[in-house]
Amino acid sequence: MAMCLLLKAFHRLTALSAVRRTRLCHPPACVLSRAMVALPSVLFPKRSDLSLPNSSWGSEMMRLYEHYNGQCEVETQGGQKQRGLWRRLPSYNRSLKYATGGAYLSKIIQSKARFFTRHIRDPGAGFEYVLFSNKEEKKCVCIFQAGHLLEGFPGHVHGGAIATMIDTVTGVHASLIAVPVMTANLNINYRRYKKNIL
Amino acid sequence: MAMCLLLKAFHRLTALSAVRRTRLCHPPACVLSRAMVALPSVLFPKRSDLSLPNSSWGSEMMRLYEHYNGQCEVETQGGQKQRGLWRRLPSYNRSLKYATGGAYLSKIIQSKARFFTRHIRDPGAGFEYVLFSNKEEKKCVCIFQAGHLLEGFPGHVHGGAIATMIDTVTGVHASLIAVPVMTANLNINYRRYKKNIL
Repeated sequence: MAMCLLLKAFHRLTALSAVRRTRLCHPPACVLSRAMVALPSVLFPKRSDLSLPNSSWGSEMMRLYEHYNGQCEVETQGGQKQRGLWRRLPSYNRSLKYATGGAYLSKIIQSKARFFTRHIRDPGAGFEYVLFSNKEEKKCVCIFQAGHLLEGFPGHVHGGAIATMIDTVTGVHASLIAVPVMTANLNINYRRYKKNIL
Repeated sequence: MAMCLLLKAFHRLTALSAVRRTRLCHPPACVLSRAMVALPSVLFPKRSDLSLPNSSWGSEMMRLYEHYNGQCEVETQGGQKQRGLWRRLPSYNRSLKYATGGAYLSKIIQSKARFFTRHIRDPGAGFEYVLFSNKEEKKCVCIFQAGHLLEGFPGHVHGGAIATMIDTVTGVHASLIAVPVMTANLNINYRRYKKNIL
């Protein structure tokens, strides 16, 4: 099953400076230095774009992916290709900003930190998703397939995993069309699963 | 940093029969049988209670744990111990209900499924938490410490990870004092982190 979230910027967001989220936990003994020093490059191996299809993607996920991916590049009358209205957003399991940021965390924690939706390595086990953005129309689409490590009630995806995807998509979308933001309010009404959403 | 959530049953919940959440993804080829057959016992190794302290718990987490754990058993005037108002809730990385349930999923997926908040094995890397329940006063407390795999914005816990904990706690709490439920609406206002909450 793949779920497709089509979002316009509808939820209340706040600029980054206005709200600080709970900081990541770390043993107090590690908080020795707040100096911003670039980490050694060995801590940043070549990153894989995790929003590309892999063998775990189901047929519905692939169908939706190809639908939107096909709109990222369009063919002109002369047979040449040019950029379309949509753009696939690459996705990684950590932020490069740690190289010069993360002042509140020790370097050990910084080097270990992974983006919540991308820390599961086994393809298909966790969050499989890809985001497409259409800046002109201020639209964003997320195609999402949930794996067996996201279980809540037996046989169902955990409500928190769904909330995580919605928070991720709306945050990325708002940051793309405006400024970097953090969510101030998240209000979700869960609904039954409906097939054939496209 | 540990976060303590004290909750009364305040959010809108719905009985399990009223709302079905999106089902876990699985390759269509696996959906061959819907018969409810008990899985072999080898798929259910001895379960560890993951709500007990481990070496990753910080001092604040331990302080809160001991505060509530001390109220699970009280000493009478005669020096004897008796059950207090609070109870620590054990927590596992999967539901035993799969042995006779999970009709929508193949047996392979069932055997792999893990509870979302408990699938991370490395102590301190993901969700470290414990729930205490007080049925008489209809209160529930969650003591939560976030690890380095729950990152959202660099150096901050992902909003979805916080939503996951709130959904987990309210769901468990409502199920304990009423009937098994699934969340119909989740409405969260994120706030700044405040120290010394107890």
